[in-house]
Amino acid sequence: MNILVTGGAGFIGSNLCERLVSLGSTVTAADNLLLGKRAHLAALEGRGDFRFVELDVSGPAGVDALFEQGRFDCVFHLAANSDIARSHADPSTDFGHTLGTTWAVLEATRRHSVKEIVFASTSAIYGEMPGCIREDQGPLLPISHYGAAKLASEAFISSYAANYGIRAWMPRFPNVVGPRSTHGAIYDFVGKLRRTPGRLEVLGDGSQVKPYLHVDDLLDAILLAKARMKAAVNVFNVGGDTRCTVRRMAEIVVEESGLDAAIVFTGGDRGWVGDVPKVDYDTTRIRSLDWAPKRDSEQSVRAAARWMFDQAAA
Amino acid sequence: MNILVTGGAGFIGSNLCERLVSLGSTVTAADNLLLGKRAHLAALEGRGDFRFVELDVSGPAGVDALFEQGRFDCVFHLAANSDIARSHADPSTDFGHTLGTTWAVLEATRRHSVKEIVFASTSAIYGEMPGCIREDQGPLLPISHYGAAKLASEAFISSYAANYGIRAWMPRFPNVVGPRSTHGAIYDFVGKLRRTPGRLEVLGDGSQVKPYLHVDDLLDAILLAKARMKAAVNVFNVGGDTRCTVRRMAEIVVEESGLDAAIVFTGGDRGWVGDVPKVDYDTTRIRSLDWAPKRDSEQSVRAAARWMFDQAAA
Repeated sequence: MNILVTGGAGFIGSNLCERLVSLGSTVTAADNLLLGKRAHLAALEGRGDFRFVELDVSGPAGVDALFEQGRFDCVFHLAANSDIARSHADPSTDFGHTLGTTWAVLEATRRHSVKEIVFASTSAIYGEMPGCIREDQGPLLPISHYGAAKLASEAFISSYAANYGIRAWMPRFPNVVGPRSTHGAIYDFVGKLRRTPGRLEVLGDGSQVKPYLHVDDLLDAILLAKARMKAAVNVFNVGGDTRCTVRRMAEIVVEESGLDAAIVFTGGDRGWVGDVPKVDYDTTRIRSLDWAPKRDSEQSVRAAARWMFDQAAA
Repeated sequence: MNILVTGGAGFIGSNLCERLVSLGSTVTAADNLLLGKRAHLAALEGRGDFRFVELDVSGPAGVDALFEQGRFDCVFHLAANSDIARSHADPSTDFGHTLGTTWAVLEATRRHSVKEIVFASTSAIYGEMPGCIREDQGPLLPISHYGAAKLASEAFISSYAANYGIRAWMPRFPNVVGPRSTHGAIYDFVGKLRRTPGRLEVLGDGSQVKPYLHVDDLLDAILLAKARMKAAVNVFNVGGDTRCTVRRMAEIVVEESGLDAAIVFTGGDRGWVGDVPKVDYDTTRIRSLDWAPKRDSEQSVRAAARWMFDQAAA
């Protein structure tokens, strides 16, 4: 298959590109390198079945030209602003980079008759969660612009699927961790410990609790769903049945650091405006395909932290 | 109250402006006059508590200047492309005029610290409906770009409410009919009967069945909800407990025309790509406020048709 991965130099995107090439696909990675890094794709550089294109995916003209030339069978659309905490001060980041990229990709998909799209959606579209929520439940009232832009993207992918016969898969990601992550709490904790080895300041009171998933497990789920789910639009929550508190995550990062650091909480029930403090969603749909993550939430956090410290030591 | 109504020269917008002025508010109507008509506001022209501004509400700079100068307490955001059938060929209409207007209004609302927004949402956000759907049920998979742009708008209104302390009401409208309607099946039927008095061609097989609501009943519901619903974000379906088939609607329009016209169906379960053939949603939430429409669906259709023929005769 001839596949485009938008956001291909990002954390999840670069892992996805490696996986798709290893499975025999020809892959084009497009990325504006704002959050992604060319170095993330080092293992693929020079291969005949892979190429990298530096491109702002929110620009319709450039995206259209890429599709014209690329003749893709399928698009994995991951390009987005993944820095949720930042967008409170500037909502245009999410409108442009998270929704605007989707709009440009959908228009090119329509014009060039690409028939498959896989979209990186998120648990953030649910907003505050009243309990363990299923894919067909609502209300969908996101509290971050990131969640809003992802829900807006889902909405247009759905209408494009209905209007132009495009098949869509929209996995809703939990917190995803692992090699090359460019943001998120573990990333922040590791950075803070480097700057102040004796003290780890944690935003909130540590009680926030969410599912964490290793990127390798995420990719297993997405590729299995793409092979097996055959509705016109396939929405599914991705995750195991475990969660981890921010307090426990901080402890794990300190353990993996080998440092004797005091953990200090800033207080409050959440880390920032737009942070959903308690995330829990029903993953029966994806698990009914006999998928289960190989690592639970704490193991995923530990593996990600260890990778970061190993990188720093190397 | 000092109120802005976007799309204020449209069908519902002009009726809303009259109602708000009659209740004592100072009202500014903004409209690009693409679908709206200046004549719709004839009853308000020259009053000191009303003014009309011709403006493309999808342009952030113009909207920002309007807010700067207007110092509004509340925005009723109705500006949108309401021509659902047209957008299959050009999705950018809905992205720009239905979602783009919301984006411009939200940014101005944030910058100028306006604390209340009422948004004209729609049953179209639900897409194909599995049964009688409640506000907190999903999935939300719209099949028209109109529905997608309205859901995308809801998403950002929700995140703006959470981030900036804006209170939002998002009534999801059914098919709304009544004086000054500028589109929709009744409008089309009346136009067709004028052109070919002996024959009324109806898109689809006539089996489509939806709730119809008279605009006066809609305004009652919205203003009651605004006074009584006090959550940060208030989403509610609007409608009574009756529906009307397209076949019956065609019969009513022919009856009101006084013509002896044959009704001919083009066939198929829906009128156009993106048309949801069977609409049914739960209106318990709004009806729990002791609101009920004064006319059922057939009476609403008949009143709207009669108004159109009366206008033509006048």
